[in-house]
Amino acid sequence: MRAVVYRGPHEVAVEQVDDPRLEAPTDVVVRITSTAICGSDLHMYEGRTGAEPGIVFGHENLGIVEEVGSGVAGIRQGDRVCMPFNVACGFCATCLAGDTAFCLTVNPGFAGGAYGYVSMGPYRGGQAEYLRVPFADFNCLRLPPGTEHEDDFAMLADIFPTGYHATQLAEVSPGETVAVFGAGPVGLMAAYSALIRGAARVFVVDRVPSRLQLAQQIGATPVDFSQGSAVDQIKDQTDGVGTDQGIDAVGYQATVAQGEEQPAVVLNDLVQTVRPTGTLGVVGLYLPQDPGAPDEDAAQGHLLFTVGKFFEKGLRMGTGQANVKAYNRQLRDMIIAGRARPSFVVSQQLPLDDAPDAYERFDRREEGYSKVVLKPGQAA
Amino acid sequence: MRAVVYRGPHEVAVEQVDDPRLEAPTDVVVRITSTAICGSDLHMYEGRTGAEPGIVFGHENLGIVEEVGSGVAGIRQGDRVCMPFNVACGFCATCLAGDTAFCLTVNPGFAGGAYGYVSMGPYRGGQAEYLRVPFADFNCLRLPPGTEHEDDFAMLADIFPTGYHATQLAEVSPGETVAVFGAGPVGLMAAYSALIRGAARVFVVDRVPSRLQLAQQIGATPVDFSQGSAVDQIKDQTDGVGTDQGIDAVGYQATVAQGEEQPAVVLNDLVQTVRPTGTLGVVGLYLPQDPGAPDEDAAQGHLLFTVGKFFEKGLRMGTGQANVKAYNRQLRDMIIAGRARPSFVVSQQLPLDDAPDAYERFDRREEGYSKVVLKPGQAA
Amino acid sequence: MRAVVYRGPHEVAVEQVDDPRLEAPTDVVVRITSTAICGSDLHMYEGRTGAEPGIVFGHENLGIVEEVGSGVAGIRQGDRVCMPFNVACGFCATCLAGDTAFCLTVNPGFAGGAYGYVSMGPYRGGQAEYLRVPFADFNCLRLPPGTEHEDDFAMLADIFPTGYHATQLAEVSPGETVAVFGAGPVGLMAAYSALIRGAARVFVVDRVPSRLQLAQQIGATPVDFSQGSAVDQIKDQTDGVGTDQGIDAVGYQATVAQGEEQPAVVLNDLVQTVRPTGTLGVVGLYLPQDPGAPDEDAAQGHLLFTVGKFFEKGLRMGTGQANVKAYNRQLRDMIIAGRARPSFVVSQQLPLDDAPDAYERFDRREEGYSKVVLKPGQAA
Amino acid sequence: MRAVVYRGPHEVAVEQVDDPRLEAPTDVVVRITSTAICGSDLHMYEGRTGAEPGIVFGHENLGIVEEVGSGVAGIRQGDRVCMPFNVACGFCATCLAGDTAFCLTVNPGFAGGAYGYVSMGPYRGGQAEYLRVPFADFNCLRLPPGTEHEDDFAMLADIFPTGYHATQLAEVSPGETVAVFGAGPVGLMAAYSALIRGAARVFVVDRVPSRLQLAQQIGATPVDFSQGSAVDQIKDQTDGVGTDQGIDAVGYQATVAQGEEQPAVVLNDLVQTVRPTGTLGVVGLYLPQDPGAPDEDAAQGHLLFTVGKFFEKGLRMGTGQANVKAYNRQLRDMIIAGRARPSFVVSQQLPLDDAPDAYERFDRREEGYSKVVLKPGQAA
Repeated sequence: MRAVVYRGPHEVAVEQVDDPRLEAPTDVVVRITSTAICGSDLHMYEGRTGAEPGIVFGHENLGIVEEVGSGVAGIRQGDRVCMPFNVACGFCATCLAGDTAFCLTVNPGFAGGAYGYVSMGPYRGGQAEYLRVPFADFNCLRLPPGTEHEDDFAMLADIFPTGYHATQLAEVSPGETVAVFGAGPVGLMAAYSALIRGAARVFVVDRVPSRLQLAQQIGATPVDFSQGSAVDQIKDQTDGVGTDQGIDAVGYQATVAQGEEQPAVVLNDLVQTVRPTGTLGVVGLYLPQDPGAPDEDAAQGHLLFTVGKFFEKGLRMGTGQANVKAYNRQLRDMIIAGRARPSFVVSQQLPLDDAPDAYERFDRREEGYSKVVLKPGQAA
Repeated sequence: MRAVVYRGPHEVAVEQVDDPRLEAPTDVVVRITSTAICGSDLHMYEGRTGAEPGIVFGHENLGIVEEVGSGVAGIRQGDRVCMPFNVACGFCATCLAGDTAFCLTVNPGFAGGAYGYVSMGPYRGGQAEYLRVPFADFNCLRLPPGTEHEDDFAMLADIFPTGYHATQLAEVSPGETVAVFGAGPVGLMAAYSALIRGAARVFVVDRVPSRLQLAQQIGATPVDFSQGSAVDQIKDQTDGVGTDQGIDAVGYQATVAQGEEQPAVVLNDLVQTVRPTGTLGVVGLYLPQDPGAPDEDAAQGHLLFTVGKFFEKGLRMGTGQANVKAYNRQLRDMIIAGRARPSFVVSQQLPLDDAPDAYERFDRREEGYSKVVLKPGQAA
Repeated sequence: MRAVVYRGPHEVAVEQVDDPRLEAPTDVVVRITSTAICGSDLHMYEGRTGAEPGIVFGHENLGIVEEVGSGVAGIRQGDRVCMPFNVACGFCATCLAGDTAFCLTVNPGFAGGAYGYVSMGPYRGGQAEYLRVPFADFNCLRLPPGTEHEDDFAMLADIFPTGYHATQLAEVSPGETVAVFGAGPVGLMAAYSALIRGAARVFVVDRVPSRLQLAQQIGATPVDFSQGSAVDQIKDQTDGVGTDQGIDAVGYQATVAQGEEQPAVVLNDLVQTVRPTGTLGVVGLYLPQDPGAPDEDAAQGHLLFTVGKFFEKGLRMGTGQANVKAYNRQLRDMIIAGRARPSFVVSQQLPLDDAPDAYERFDRREEGYSKVVLKPGQAA
Repeated sequence: MRAVVYRGPHEVAVEQVDDPRLEAPTDVVVRITSTAICGSDLHMYEGRTGAEPGIVFGHENLGIVEEVGSGVAGIRQGDRVCMPFNVACGFCATCLAGDTAFCLTVNPGFAGGAYGYVSMGPYRGGQAEYLRVPFADFNCLRLPPGTEHEDDFAMLADIFPTGYHATQLAEVSPGETVAVFGAGPVGLMAAYSALIRGAARVFVVDRVPSRLQLAQQIGATPVDFSQGSAVDQIKDQTDGVGTDQGIDAVGYQATVAQGEEQPAVVLNDLVQTVRPTGTLGVVGLYLPQDPGAPDEDAAQGHLLFTVGKFFEKGLRMGTGQANVKAYNRQLRDMIIAGRARPSFVVSQQLPLDDAPDAYERFDRREEGYSKVVLKPGQAA
């Protein structure tokens, strides 16, 4: 089959690779109909990780079940399914607690596995014609047959649940105010989720006009941090109080208005932005190792964090990759009911063969390349 | 009346001051029967805060109601009452949410007030014969008449609820394992609370033998960090997994085994100690300003925190002063029912006049001076 | 001042009564600008309660503070405020737990007080020019000055929080399906609240076309039980599964399609309607005494409830009057932000003098008389 | 192999039946070392259900894994395991929500499956030498190797988690008061669990002296309802307030002091016993069909329930079979840590061959036959 293969820094190719096959009775093989490129794929693409050439990318996967293992009970050939980016077993202690992003089974020696991602276990990615899905009963979310909502459902694999997870970590509830830092696809999904949960007001901080425009379109209040301190702008609009909750959808590659990378700037701005006893939800990535970090401490994930103020205000903070499985059924049902349409972030649908070009444009943040969905079954 | 007055660094005196009086219809005046010295009083005593001479210390107060304002509905003269260290109004947004340690009314310009503490509002302390209590209906916890459980009830003003708050922030539930760093009175109360909540195993980390012994007596497992890495010792006893939750009852004055202050060492050790998706409860104090800090960043409360590992493990953290009011009724009922006896930490009962001597001994951590309860009504 | 006074079954009059005055330092007196007639006022109006002539009706009150007691700290003359229908102290055990509808202080011998309601304590109602508000700091919700959102804010006193409370009891969360029985003002507010909380689908059961139409307008799916079993209609639209949650906004005066009163029919229909492990929120009124009940058991509030099926399905049920205070701040903020407009249920704004006529029409369920707001300051 | 086979009302026999074998790749076969007789087995034994002769009883099973299917990932031959009485898949909507007692997969057409129980699916019971366990990764709880805590661990299959579930439904938290109706094994486990969770006071209501004595031994307060109204006795001991929570560990076969069956008496007594806004946890069984019921309504599970008072007090109620999987890991860890010893309820350990005699004695409530554990590997 054909697949998007990592060849080295700034290079992917669509190549012929072996077809996946059932490796355990609990596996299925899925023919991929939609598979999105994720901002986190760029970390590997840019060579800032330990990813070795040969890896097949793709952890936002949707398709039709082709083959079913003999130990699979609830999934049938022909089922249309979406897979969480996290591979999980469903029966370890963390999976049982609902924390499927930290499965103890699927990636021995580490808590958590994923498709097509360095260090996340031996699972080939889905930017390909076919994908093997382990523990299929647990990892496949069944969708209505047909092709309706295809791009909306593709967002269920990662970014919609990840955005929602941020609001869950931040404990957003009806009538509250939320500040979301970062208006990339995940930040927009966080703002969208906050509104779904009944937030009264949602501020979205970014500097890219097209992103801020999307934020406004969904009902959030855009805050352009290139026009002055985001903290001040938000406080000015909340009678000086700040927001009830804050969401970090940026992570360690945060930059200040002048463009310089300051890995803790978003976290520290959030500490200033939220009111006393507020809560932070952090889904922007922070790493224990970052070879490209601006200083030695940051290279080990040690950041100068305003602990004193955080404590004085009695803040709380939840972090980590999203437990997609905890939310994808409910979010699917909102899509089916017409109450959510997360595909508003999708900028392109492209055949698999266009992946190399798409990666290149996406990597240089070309205007209008915000969220690409590859369609392996579509002619180039 | 006589009161313990701060005279300057390392000096308190028992002096004559004006009697307190009702200042608002919602006040009461309480005759103090027990008032404990808190570790946080030493911050002022040591001159490491902006406390001015003349302040009356004391925020752990218990006594008998003497005078009652005309707007007080539920408290009567003669009632035996215990006051949370936090002064709170009961009707602002944070009080309504149960976060009474962050009251927006009682200390304008800041979230939270307390008795006898610098920057915590105009409330005289209770290391004195009498104490004015504002918003008395809200701030007085009624106790059974008499003198039974006097020292247990005195622990309800601060350290028992503060220890309990740590377990609440850490979300301790039955069958789980907890690591408590710090075996001072608050750390011991946290360990005690974790056991009350049904924790299967509680590790308590300290280096002072008498504290570790108390930890063992209440059913916790002592870990002496002067004998080797606390993280390693706890991992060794948990099959390498670490604990479900971690509690910081030390704060910014943390020291390493060699004795040097490292303000973030406990936080960072906790990140190593807890398992992925675990939760930290932080009640040890961190400050946005610390003139005595080891470096410039720490002086502003900016600490090198292992954010990368914290995020990778998907940890959560709750912090801040305890909302005593959220727990003191239930903990009182446990004392009455004979199911809790927090006074096991009390080391001395002394007349008020002994306060200067007690402060001096407590400040130099004299063996056996762990928790002093002053008895203003007792002859010297 | 003038007030709506109960004169006996089916008779109210607008009469001159004594002006209210400050009775305690913690009181305020409010000049009423809007005060709504509630369905529960009709219970008294119809003579089916022990209400004595002379009672002033009105528990949905909004106005401007005119006089302020000396013990009031956070409310000032001229403040625009809305009062929860429940009178509460803010410091008893149930108030502290957030259950302000069950205050132990304000109505000795009973848990809960209210304005202008039989057996709910000595609090005159607000269908009048002025209203005394006890424990004013706790019971007044401050609103933005001016007259904007007047009718929306009037809904904050009772029906919007009551509808929201139903969704809280039923634990509605994003992506779920909800069945609301009853499309009177409270049922509509429950459906509206469920949608605010992110429910995927909300079914609303009634037989009155105008009510079902309103349900549809807010995005719910109307179910007309005069056209066939509501249970079956909902199951048909949920693949036979039923809904995740159910809400009873009808209560003991429930009737079957044929018109006969069957006090438990809604509860029992809900048990059939929700899926196993679902949750019921019950805000429709049930009483321990009902002289007008169809049988002797029902007259004592003993109803034939399908306990066997309830248990087999592992259902949960929460009941009771709404703790308005737990929700009114957040709902107010949604109104201010333009995210909620509960006044869509208001059918008439009338001067106080029109109250007798409005009661009469409302009582005979005259088409179009669904929610009347009286305006005491408005000329007749 | 030999197994306890139901032969008809009041008759079981130990017979030779086919050995179980792996039927799906996700199965294991377990050699049973301990298997307890449950009060609910008596419903079948007494012929009050639709159980057909030939059924093998036993849903409280513990043993050693003998055979492992090819699709099992986390369980190995030789593992010592305990199985929840509920058979569950781990991936359906209710299992994902943690409600494993209501699995939608294992017993088509019904929510929930179990071993050796009428209408609970095609799963043979474990009062036998061997047991097939489906979805083994999900259904096996791994225990430490060896034989230590054998009887304690046997309680993890049903009654300890069921008692704990009652406290979870009732939302018992530290410092609260709880009334448990019924001091059979489940009621005792509920009281024990309430104390583990930090309840200040636990009242246990029964009339059998030996049961009340056990209640007292674990620290609860016994209430003998043959000596007068249980409601009154509890109110007398709680200043007339009643308890915060109530637990029904009796179910529909409740009797009054005079001995007569009154199916709703415990539920209605609990409504009287708990304070306003309290919560009920109901694990005593109620059925939608009961041929032996005292009247026609009760035969269909329709009981006269004091709905009016329930609503007026704003009570909540959770019901249903225990989701054992939600608690068994944590309770196991409490046993290992020496913090729980649920085997205090075990009255006999007997070889499998003694089952017929044990059933007979247990069924006639012979003094001292409260909880029998069969040991299939033990010589008769």
